[in-house]
Amino acid sequence: MTLMLDEALLDRLMGEQAAVAATPDGGVDRPALTEGDRHARDWLRAKFEALGMRTLTDPIGNMFGCIEWAGFGAPWIMTGSHLDSQPNGGRFDGAYGVAAGLSAAAALKQAIRDGTIVPRANLAVCNWTNEEGARFQPSLIGSSVYIGSMPLADALAVKDGAGVSVGAALDAIGYRGQDEPPLPAAYVEMHVECAPELEQEGLQAGPFTRYWGATKIRARFTGLQAHTGPTPMERRRDALLGAAYLIADLSEMCGAAADTLYTSVGRIEVMPNSPNSVVSEATLYVELRSPVQEVLSWAEEIFLQALERSARRAVVEGCVVHTERRRAGMFDPELCRKVEAAMAAEGIAGKRLSTIAAHDAIRIAEICPSIVVAVRSIGGICHNATEYSHPEDLAAGARILTRILADLIENPSV
Amino acid sequence: MTLMLDEALLDRLMGEQAAVAATPDGGVDRPALTEGDRHARDWLRAKFEALGMRTLTDPIGNMFGCIEWAGFGAPWIMTGSHLDSQPNGGRFDGAYGVAAGLSAAAALKQAIRDGTIVPRANLAVCNWTNEEGARFQPSLIGSSVYIGSMPLADALAVKDGAGVSVGAALDAIGYRGQDEPPLPAAYVEMHVECAPELEQEGLQAGPFTRYWGATKIRARFTGLQAHTGPTPMERRRDALLGAAYLIADLSEMCGAAADTLYTSVGRIEVMPNSPNSVVSEATLYVELRSPVQEVLSWAEEIFLQALERSARRAVVEGCVVHTERRRAGMFDPELCRKVEAAMAAEGIAGKRLSTIAAHDAIRIAEICPSIVVAVRSIGGICHNATEYSHPEDLAAGARILTRILADLIENPSV
Repeated sequence: MTLMLDEALLDRLMGEQAAVAATPDGGVDRPALTEGDRHARDWLRAKFEALGMRTLTDPIGNMFGCIEWAGFGAPWIMTGSHLDSQPNGGRFDGAYGVAAGLSAAAALKQAIRDGTIVPRANLAVCNWTNEEGARFQPSLIGSSVYIGSMPLADALAVKDGAGVSVGAALDAIGYRGQDEPPLPAAYVEMHVECAPELEQEGLQAGPFTRYWGATKIRARFTGLQAHTGPTPMERRRDALLGAAYLIADLSEMCGAAADTLYTSVGRIEVMPNSPNSVVSEATLYVELRSPVQEVLSWAEEIFLQALERSARRAVVEGCVVHTERRRAGMFDPELCRKVEAAMAAEGIAGKRLSTIAAHDAIRIAEICPSIVVAVRSIGGICHNATEYSHPEDLAAGARILTRILADLIENPSV
Repeated sequence: MTLMLDEALLDRLMGEQAAVAATPDGGVDRPALTEGDRHARDWLRAKFEALGMRTLTDPIGNMFGCIEWAGFGAPWIMTGSHLDSQPNGGRFDGAYGVAAGLSAAAALKQAIRDGTIVPRANLAVCNWTNEEGARFQPSLIGSSVYIGSMPLADALAVKDGAGVSVGAALDAIGYRGQDEPPLPAAYVEMHVECAPELEQEGLQAGPFTRYWGATKIRARFTGLQAHTGPTPMERRRDALLGAAYLIADLSEMCGAAADTLYTSVGRIEVMPNSPNSVVSEATLYVELRSPVQEVLSWAEEIFLQALERSARRAVVEGCVVHTERRRAGMFDPELCRKVEAAMAAEGIAGKRLSTIAAHDAIRIAEICPSIVVAVRSIGGICHNATEYSHPEDLAAGARILTRILADLIENPSV
C-alpha cells in the first residue's frame, strides 16, 4: 500500500490555524464559541470545501467534513479533535488532531483516485465543541451531546462565568447547526502527548491504551460579607480562608497516593471580591484524577472530609455544588494493534501510553471502537503558549493516521 | 440655642437614597462611578437644589452642596461622607453621613432665618468619590485628590478589574467636573459605627478620637500555566497553592498580636482561571490594620516572610506589587470636646471610640481640624446588606451634628 502524506500541507495547516487568535508568545487564545473559535471554525469550513468535503454542523456546533467515497449508506470512519483552546493556550492541543485529519483525508483522496485503495467506507473529519471545558463546564460537551450522554437542552443551557449560555454563544458566532451528522464505525484521534514520557524515552509516538478516571467537584464555602476593618477577627466568617485550607490540604492528598492520584484547583470564583470586604462566597473547581477506580473513590471520600475540616476550621459552611465522575477505562485493543502495525510499517519507535487528560475519544468510545494516538510533546508542556511538538513528529503521527484510516476504509468492520 | 432637627426629613432622605440601586435583601449595590452611583449622585444634586445649595463638582467627581451664609470669602465648615457602596453593601455606610449633613443643613437654614444663630461661616455638604475602594483601589481617592496627597492624573488613570479607568468612568456617568471647591476650616463626618462596641455597652453615639493605621499590600504569586491532567504533580508550579498557604498563614498572624492586629484578604485575581489549567498567576489584596505603628511595621515584616515561605513551599515566585501605608493617628481633640458637649446638651449617652475602618476625614484631617462621630450599629454589621442602625440613633447623631455645625458656623476658628 503506497500512501503519500503531504508533509508540507500538514505544516501549512498547522501554521494557518496557529495564526487564528494567536497570542504574542506563540500560543492561541480561543476558548469555545468565542470570536477566536469562530474564526478557527470559518478557517476549517474553507479547508473542508477545498478538499471537496461537505460541511455538516449539528445543533451543539460540532463540525463534520464529510466525503462519501462509498455512498451515504456505507459505514463512516471518523477522525478529528477540537479547535477550541484554553485561555492563552497552546497551538498544538486539539488543533493537531484536526490538521492531521485534513492532511490524511487529502492523502486518502489521492490514493483512491490512483486506485491504490478501494473504499468501502466514507470519511468524516470532525471538530468537537468545547472539548477544553475552560469557558463552559463540563469539558467534552460536543461529543457528549453527540453520543447522547448529555441532553442537548442541558448543554445549550450551560453558562460561562459571565452568564452567557452555550446556546446564545453558538448563535452569536453562527454555529448552531441543524444537520444530523453520520455515526462512525470507528474513531481515531491524533493528539500531542501533553506529557513527558515519549520524550524521556526517545520515542516518537504511541497509542493511548488506557485513560485515567476523573472526579470533578465544584465545592463552595459560604461565609458572611463584612468590613475587613472594624469586624472583630473572631467574628469573621471568611469563605476564602476555608478555600485556602482546602487547597493546601488537597495538594497534600497526592503524597499519600504516590503516582496514582493527581489533584488540582484551577478555578476559583469569589464574592464580592472587594479588597475591604470579607469574602462571603468562594467556589472552587476541584479535579481528582487517577488510573485506579478505587483510588478515585478513596480520594473523593478524603476530599469530602477535608472540605468539612476546612469549613470547620474557618467557621464557615462548606458544601459540594456539583460532582462529575468519569470512570477510568480502556480504548479499543484491536485499534491499538492497528496503530502498532502502522507504526511498525512506518518505522516509528513508540510505546503504549495512558492518557491522564480527557479526549473526545473517551466519549466516542461509548458508541464505537475508538483510540487516541499521541505524538511526542517537548517538555510535556500543555495548556501553555510554549507547548511544542517537532514538525517531524507531527508528520510521523499523520502518516500513522493515514495508514490506519486507509485500512479502516478498506475494511470498515473493526 | 434652639435647633429643630426635622427627624422625618432625615428618615425620608435615608429611605430615598436606600432605594437607589437597592438590592432585594435591603442593601444597595453602587460601587463608585457605576450607574447606581450616578443615580445616587443625581438624587443628591436634586436635594442640594431643593435646599438652595449650589452644586460644585471637582475634577475627581467630589460633589459639594454649598450655601453662602457669610459670603464666599468667609470660612467654610464642611460635613458629608460618601454615597458609593461595596458590591451588595449596606444602605447606611456613607449614605448616613450625607443624609445627616443634608438634614442638619435644613435645620441650620431655619435657625439662621429665625435669627437663632448668626452665621460667620458658610456650609458645604460633600460626597467624596470612591471612598470604598471596592471598584477602584486605593480607597479614599476623592478626598486624597482634594487635599493634594494624590495627583489628579494618577487618580484618573486608576483602573478597575475590567480595565476601565476612573477618568473614563467619570465621563461615562457625567460627573467629571471643573469646579474648584472651597477648602474647609473644619470638617465633621457622621458615620455608623460598623463595630459592636456602642451596642454592647448600651450607648448611642461617640466621637472617634483615634484611627487605626493600615498597610495594604498587593502580593502576587507567579507559577506556570499547565494542564491539570497529565502534568506530573512534582512539576506543577501552582500560583493558587502559594496564595492558599499565605492566606492561611496571614490568618494565624493575628493570634500572635492579640487585639492589636487585624488581617484580611478580600480580593483575589487568578489567571487563567480555567478548571483544567494550573493557575499561572494569583494576586492577593492584603490588609494589615493596627492602632499601634510598631505592630504594623512588625506585621509587614512577618507578612513578607510568610510571602517568601509560601512561595517557596509551592515552588512558585512571590512578590509585592504595591504597598500603601496609612499611619495610625488622632482626630482633632478640640472637635472631640465639642462632640461631647453636644452629646451632653442633647442627653445622648456615649463614649470615645477608635475607628478601624478608614474614613475620608482621615484625609481631610491633614488640612484642617476634623472628626468622625459614630452612631450605634446593630450587631456591628458593615459592608453587608443587613447593616442596620435604629432611626432614633440616626436622629440622635444628626442632632449632635446640627449642634456642632451651629457652633462652628458661629465660631469658625476651632
